Amino acid sequence: MTGYITLDHGAGGLASQKLIGSLFLKHLKNPILGRMEDGAVFDPGEGRTAFTTDSYVVDPIFFPGGTIGELAVNGTINDLAMCGAEPRALSLALIIEEGFGIAELERIIKAIADSADHAGVPVLTGDTKVVPRGKADKIFINTSGIGMVGDGIRMGADRIRAGDVLLLSGTLADHGITIMTSRAGLTVDGNLQSDTRPLHFLSRKILTEAPESIHAMRDPTRGGLGTVLAELATTTNLCMEVEEENIPMRGEVRAACELMGLDPLYLANEGKCVVIAAPEQAASVLGAMQATEAGRQAAIIGKVTEKYPGRVILHTVSGGKRLVEPLSGEPLPRIC
Amino acid sequence: MTGYITLDHGAGGLASQKLIGSLFLKHLKNPILGRMEDGAVFDPGEGRTAFTTDSYVVDPIFFPGGTIGELAVNGTINDLAMCGAEPRALSLALIIEEGFGIAELERIIKAIADSADHAGVPVLTGDTKVVPRGKADKIFINTSGIGMVGDGIRMGADRIRAGDVLLLSGTLADHGITIMTSRAGLTVDGNLQSDTRPLHFLSRKILTEAPESIHAMRDPTRGGLGTVLAELATTTNLCMEVEEENIPMRGEVRAACELMGLDPLYLANEGKCVVIAAPEQAASVLGAMQATEAGRQAAIIGKVTEKYPGRVILHTVSGGKRLVEPLSGEPLPRIC
Repeated sequence: MTGYITLDHGAGGLASQKLIGSLFLKHLKNPILGRMEDGAVFDPGEGRTAFTTDSYVVDPIFFPGGTIGELAVNGTINDLAMCGAEPRALSLALIIEEGFGIAELERIIKAIADSADHAGVPVLTGDTKVVPRGKADKIFINTSGIGMVGDGIRMGADRIRAGDVLLLSGTLADHGITIMTSRAGLTVDGNLQSDTRPLHFLSRKILTEAPESIHAMRDPTRGGLGTVLAELATTTNLCMEVEEENIPMRGEVRAACELMGLDPLYLANEGKCVVIAAPEQAASVLGAMQATEAGRQAAIIGKVTEKYPGRVILHTVSGGKRLVEPLSGEPLPRIC
Repeated sequence: MTGYITLDHGAGGLASQKLIGSLFLKHLKNPILGRMEDGAVFDPGEGRTAFTTDSYVVDPIFFPGGTIGELAVNGTINDLAMCGAEPRALSLALIIEEGFGIAELERIIKAIADSADHAGVPVLTGDTKVVPRGKADKIFINTSGIGMVGDGIRMGADRIRAGDVLLLSGTLADHGITIMTSRAGLTVDGNLQSDTRPLHFLSRKILTEAPESIHAMRDPTRGGLGTVLAELATTTNLCMEVEEENIPMRGEVRAACELMGLDPLYLANEGKCVVIAAPEQAASVLGAMQATEAGRQAAIIGKVTEKYPGRVILHTVSGGKRLVEPLSGEPLPRIC
């Protein structure tokens, strides 16, 4: 489709219905969404309900490795996966700036449909608002998600103990550095790409193989690995000790971080998770992670100790010790 | 609290945590939200799950009778109520423009907390993003909602039959005309006020008293009563016949509509619903509606017939007949 979004498309009348019919329902095919009622009624299956929400305001909306659409689907699926839930349904709410290209919108909706298909999680309900030119920046997307948590699964920061092992599912900082270099218009040797991907296949695998041993999971998005570990250290009042040399990172990401003066510990990831697991099972959890597509490059990166309560310590490659502080100041806005 | 929102508040680090702790959790107290995990895990109770989402971009954000905060809570609760669901949980996702006043933000969060309390529906999970100055207009809010639909309840446009009765829960166009006059800076005699309010107490009452007789419910928000009826006529291929003189409307709303040249049939309502009920039970459904706070001024406004399939006919006060077309063109943007 061609043309531009007008205020009519958000007014709830004929133009809205046409946009929904010809563009949204064309890609996001499913009978529940197709009923166009005020909400979706469905049966999510057994278990406790997990509920999460995230808005996506990434700039630029198209970047190497994905679009705001993949982020919106995978990011919310990942928040459910981090609760130990099987994702069952997504909502999709768009705020679009008047004048936005319908071809660009279709590209985003197609990315949403493809990611939702790949993840096996349907978009069941939605909303579209249009604001006048200059009152928003192109498009903002909110997705909320419902998942179901099986009976045997109890994860949370309160289950973390000294002695637990810290695992990272793959390379660090890919999404953050991709967005920052895109935004700066930098071309970097090699192939920087967002790591946006769903993590529920990985979480399902490890929770099936070692349900009792997985104490907590976190996806280090905004604020990066440093912020996630700092929050865990504060919440548990334990020490998170990390071996820098064990953190998987692509060479071109490391080089681009140096070039731009950015610390990869604070850069966003959109397809990685930290798993905190009981030490006895750490090797088998690592094996299970590595057996999934999302966890091929998983590694044990450190452990939970009582050494410096409430602190994160990085044992650097050069043999030093660095205190990792929570992120403050110098924010990287609109990274997701 | 005073001060202004900075990009730090959306970066996921210390500033974000402080804002959440000192402002959001102060008002939106509940143990699940307080856990600050990636999502909320809870037990919504028995039934099928209803799921809905809406973004709120109303301009102005403060208006007579409410704020964007009440709209965001009540609007999503109402979408669940229209599905026949008991609302159980809300999510809250904010997109805030850099430089927005923290005092204004607190006023909105307090409105959200108060409306959620009044409705008895907790906010269980949330997200905050900040975009640079000029990239959004003050604040946009998304709420999604989860509700549970009891076993005996089956509502939907497919249950509407010729002979059914159309009921409206109260006066027309209050929200739409309030926003339009506020925006125009008009002062109108009398007391124009948004009708924002939750409708689930009303829907619970009528679904308890006459579950089989309620064929469908719709809340005429964006696009108004005209658009809702036009959609129902199209979907059912039946005729919606409405008696203009039976539509409740406040004198000052009628006067302001005339002054501004706006048709109240297309103006938004934020605390009203259309109920389509079996004719045998219409009087008792009307009585049940009138017994609730939200339905005091409920009225039977028309009926479903086979006269003009797919059309909405308004029998005017002056004795004429008017075809009510779906809204197209001349949109009223940012009404909710």
